[in-house]
Amino acid sequence: MDLWREMGLEGRRALIVHHDDLGITHAQNQAYLDLGLPTGSVFAASAWAPALAGLSGGDIGAHLTLTSEWRAPRLRPLTAGPSLRDPAGYLWPTLEEVWQHADVAEVEAEFRAQVDAVYALGIDVTHIDTHMGAVMRPDIAEVYVRLAEEYRLPLMLPARLEYHALPEAFREPLQRALGATRLPRVDVLMGYGHAPEAMRDWYAGALRNLGPGVYHLIHHAALDTPEGRMLPDWDRRAADADALRDGEVRALIAEFTPLTYREIRDALRAHWPEEGRVDGDA
Amino acid sequence: MDLWREMGLEGRRALIVHHDDLGITHAQNQAYLDLGLPTGSVFAASAWAPALAGLSGGDIGAHLTLTSEWRAPRLRPLTAGPSLRDPAGYLWPTLEEVWQHADVAEVEAEFRAQVDAVYALGIDVTHIDTHMGAVMRPDIAEVYVRLAEEYRLPLMLPARLEYHALPEAFREPLQRALGATRLPRVDVLMGYGHAPEAMRDWYAGALRNLGPGVYHLIHHAALDTPEGRMLPDWDRRAADADALRDGEVRALIAEFTPLTYREIRDALRAHWPEEGRVDGDA
Repeated sequence: MDLWREMGLEGRRALIVHHDDLGITHAQNQAYLDLGLPTGSVFAASAWAPALAGLSGGDIGAHLTLTSEWRAPRLRPLTAGPSLRDPAGYLWPTLEEVWQHADVAEVEAEFRAQVDAVYALGIDVTHIDTHMGAVMRPDIAEVYVRLAEEYRLPLMLPARLEYHALPEAFREPLQRALGATRLPRVDVLMGYGHAPEAMRDWYAGALRNLGPGVYHLIHHAALDTPEGRMLPDWDRRAADADALRDGEVRALIAEFTPLTYREIRDALRAHWPEEGRVDGDA
Repeated sequence: MDLWREMGLEGRRALIVHHDDLGITHAQNQAYLDLGLPTGSVFAASAWAPALAGLSGGDIGAHLTLTSEWRAPRLRPLTAGPSLRDPAGYLWPTLEEVWQHADVAEVEAEFRAQVDAVYALGIDVTHIDTHMGAVMRPDIAEVYVRLAEEYRLPLMLPARLEYHALPEAFREPLQRALGATRLPRVDVLMGYGHAPEAMRDWYAGALRNLGPGVYHLIHHAALDTPEGRMLPDWDRRAADADALRDGEVRALIAEFTPLTYREIRDALRAHWPEEGRVDGDA
């Protein structure tokens, strides 16, 4: 299935600008509304998720999570699975705790509940992606891929996996789990590791010299407000927002073919069976 | 059981300044921290509740709720009871929907989960109170009273019931449900209905000419921030914060004997059976 060719993207530079972590704070949501860029994904369990319902032009996915890593705000699982929660009832604070404790059947029920909850807001879900890489545990990756196929949604699937602090034992089965799908892959760009004062230049540099491809640029833009500052990495989030308001960065973005997950989803569905997987034989 | 006499409050003017709706926004929590007044109650299901854990000098209760009335932020029930949730999975937006739909057994499970969740944060819960009066349905009022007694916690129990838009059929059974306990009652003061520009004067007037009694002053102070302004009544919340920072209002408050629910709870527990109710015979 060569979706990119079918969509007329072959030989072009296509760009999805993707806003992660929507719903976690008002500062994050308001940056989304202010920037006017359509694509992002929302924490189903977040208090601010309902504010994203009913927007025209939204391209909103479900930001599947098994972690809630800050002191506050914190998220609870939507389902009752005891393996998904810390002693206070919230999602685990760290990846390591998720990987150690999470029962895969409870993960699957929770991920379904998270996708369903975004639909229940009246949001026409366009894709799924994942928070903090909890899906890198191979059996969880298998669920992640399978749910995308069952829901007939594209998922954020990096063309190249980067194994930040990934247990060695995960690598080969993870490759196998992600290799089981023919869903399209994207080249991921993310400046998150850079210092806030270097962020604008990172964007300009990263966008300037790319060859043809389908790029998924991850950002976490949030306003610099008293609430936004409660996240420990607020300065990187504010730097993302500043960079994406910058004239040169916007001009560089405008040189790409803009792409949304809605377009990808709808192109996929055009030849996707109503039931069943898009597997190696599709 | 004449608790007020036992506590040495007879003939005095005692005042609990009570911060409602903690946890719902950062703006609400930060006002609590800034004002330095110890007493308030927190929504167990709110994203910001964990920020109130580990405070020294806190006097924090569980703000039991069955409603989530704003577009965002919204709260979900902690338990799975279908009668407690709207089609998108959140607590009902209105009192009328709660009164129409809520199954009392599901309410009891939810209220227990809310109290337990505040304890699970490591907060030494000092009392329970209730949001928007959902407990005025008589069978729910019966649960509210019974849980306070089981948890050996004081509850916010007004000495005079004001029947705002209360169905006529509720009145007599509600009186009976609340009359079943000998837990102490308080005289409730609340300026919420007043215009923001009149709030300071309301506080000054309300506090100036009171006789002896135990008063529970309800406020909803929140900072005036972009996030705080998302609540439709943000201007009244900001006016509460302004009034409680006002020198004259603080001087009037200082003329009262300050009272916390922790003191009430501990005085109650001094002669409260480990098991069993504080009923008419206690």
